[in-house]
Amino acid sequence: MTSPTVSGLGEAGILQVLHRRFRTVPAAQDWPEGSLGPGDDAAVVPAPDGRFVISTDAMAQDRDFRLVWPSGAVDSGYSTGWKAAAQNLSDINAMGARASSLLLALTMPGHTPVRWLDRFAAGIAGAVHHLGADTCRIAGGDLGGDDRITVCVTVTGDLDGRPAVRRTIPRDHQGGTGPLDLALCGKAGWAAAGLSVLQTPRTDLDRALDRTGIHRLAARAAAAQLRPRPILTAGPTAAEHGALAMLDVSDGLARDAARLAAANGLDVELDEDWVEQAAAGLAPLASALGEDAADWVRTGGEDYGLLAVFSGGAPLPPGFTRVGRLVAPGGTSQSLNPARARIGWDHFGG
Amino acid sequence: MTSPTVSGLGEAGILQVLHRRFRTVPAAQDWPEGSLGPGDDAAVVPAPDGRFVISTDAMAQDRDFRLVWPSGAVDSGYSTGWKAAAQNLSDINAMGARASSLLLALTMPGHTPVRWLDRFAAGIAGAVHHLGADTCRIAGGDLGGDDRITVCVTVTGDLDGRPAVRRTIPRDHQGGTGPLDLALCGKAGWAAAGLSVLQTPRTDLDRALDRTGIHRLAARAAAAQLRPRPILTAGPTAAEHGALAMLDVSDGLARDAARLAAANGLDVELDEDWVEQAAAGLAPLASALGEDAADWVRTGGEDYGLLAVFSGGAPLPPGFTRVGRLVAPGGTSQSLNPARARIGWDHFGG
Repeated sequence: MTSPTVSGLGEAGILQVLHRRFRTVPAAQDWPEGSLGPGDDAAVVPAPDGRFVISTDAMAQDRDFRLVWPSGAVDSGYSTGWKAAAQNLSDINAMGARASSLLLALTMPGHTPVRWLDRFAAGIAGAVHHLGADTCRIAGGDLGGDDRITVCVTVTGDLDGRPAVRRTIPRDHQGGTGPLDLALCGKAGWAAAGLSVLQTPRTDLDRALDRTGIHRLAARAAAAQLRPRPILTAGPTAAEHGALAMLDVSDGLARDAARLAAANGLDVELDEDWVEQAAAGLAPLASALGEDAADWVRTGGEDYGLLAVFSGGAPLPPGFTRVGRLVAPGGTSQSLNPARARIGWDHFGG
Repeated sequence: MTSPTVSGLGEAGILQVLHRRFRTVPAAQDWPEGSLGPGDDAAVVPAPDGRFVISTDAMAQDRDFRLVWPSGAVDSGYSTGWKAAAQNLSDINAMGARASSLLLALTMPGHTPVRWLDRFAAGIAGAVHHLGADTCRIAGGDLGGDDRITVCVTVTGDLDGRPAVRRTIPRDHQGGTGPLDLALCGKAGWAAAGLSVLQTPRTDLDRALDRTGIHRLAARAAAAQLRPRPILTAGPTAAEHGALAMLDVSDGLARDAARLAAANGLDVELDEDWVEQAAAGLAPLASALGEDAADWVRTGGEDYGLLAVFSGGAPLPPGFTRVGRLVAPGGTSQSLNPARARIGWDHFGG
């Protein structure tokens, strides 16, 4: 017996599957008068302070996500849905905002199993729920056919009257003396470790894990790659605690910290003690796979931690750890030169 | 000599190409204080009346657009960019709103020619400019690699304090007696005619056109398919003139009119005289290609005309033509039964 596919459902049936899953997150129906959820040509989303934050991200099958991994891991669809939602929610968080709506444009082959679609939708709803995006409503989307699956999620957010926290430090804070603290809320290196686990061929992986007995650590790392957990309270909290600039770590700490520094004409010094400490928890896994845990921490992307700049020596908001400093260019011996490290991800290798 | 590809540019170079083209449309820099254009984790878009309209659409290569057509027509990329922007601008228009921002998520192979990227970006900017979306700013986007090109455009809009015009007639207008007028602003059937032209193998097409001498009509139809021209003043104008419900015609007049009727528990009667009249201009082309022009008008999608419902007999806003009526169910002999006609497009054939 073959499993049912989306081509058997037609668009109306596909929408039913999506709506059933999305019912577990707050419905757009309880938005204020004048707003409008899915089902029309477009949604109408509240923007109480007269502005909204907006971000969009596309994920392509076998590029940004896989249905089956060399390790033998199979994604039911849940992780793909989760990650698509999480990375966009992270972008909104990184502006200091909270999510207000999510839109989904999904293209997929007719032979896509209905079960995949159901788990995918459950993953989106799961991320919204479990990451605590309580004010995020599913506002609509678009369906199309294609030879492979492509997921494009757009998320909007509210700043609640605060200014957006940008990559660049506001002018009235610039020119101050002394270094600035670079702080991180969230993990670093775990998603990269998970990628290593997932990409290791099954027999090699089984051998490595059986030898070392670290199955649970490997599973945690794989989960970090498949279902990243940006801390969505961190953005608004950091904004309220005077964060001067922010960026979410999607392409690796070294690369994203260097970006944040460069946007302000500064250099970055990562705290190597912190790197070693962060790497310690991953060291057994790195050793089992013949990799370098500190390298994962410095250059691994997709953890969606929140990187924020604070005035030097200021108390950090809860959940943040000091991971380095931004200093005047011309650097010191400690500064990490991103051109020399293996730095994060460029989709086009430039 | 091979032409330069996007993999040679890297992400920074790709963004430069996009930004250079997008400079021809109004920049986000002239948005009010507190707003924010591209370059950060997310954009911040003004929403002066405390709400915004939002719509997203994905287009996949060889499904929703082609680089090369059986007719021999080649899209430099301009038409793909134009159409991606136009269909989303149309969705905003169909709510009675004017566009405020556009975001682009683009996945493409590394071997994509830089020239394609440049023309694609020019097409987006061209649609925004030539369709008169004067208040639409390019707010940001996302880049990714893939084996083929996928384009996902998200557009937001402003209602300027008006209620959104939905598919469903507001409750305080329901229960009125007498039929409602169904009116269209824009073309019907031209994009379908263009699809026929573009999909006819070159030698057959040349023979048919040389015999009939209607090259210019065929070119106009192809242009309607490749670069649709929704009339973006129509939505806000219809809203101000008391449109009770609206929908843009993306999937064909019969199908979309039936949707509009069904959303209100009504039946649709298309005015067959109007259909014949609208078909007349396409008749020579239909005859040359062995097709039925009235069928194009009734069932052809992608013209992005605006279908609006008005109180029966009320004067129509400029640009609108009466194309039928919505009547109480139980219909008459004139009513078009969409189940019997070859109705428009379902991506999953359901």
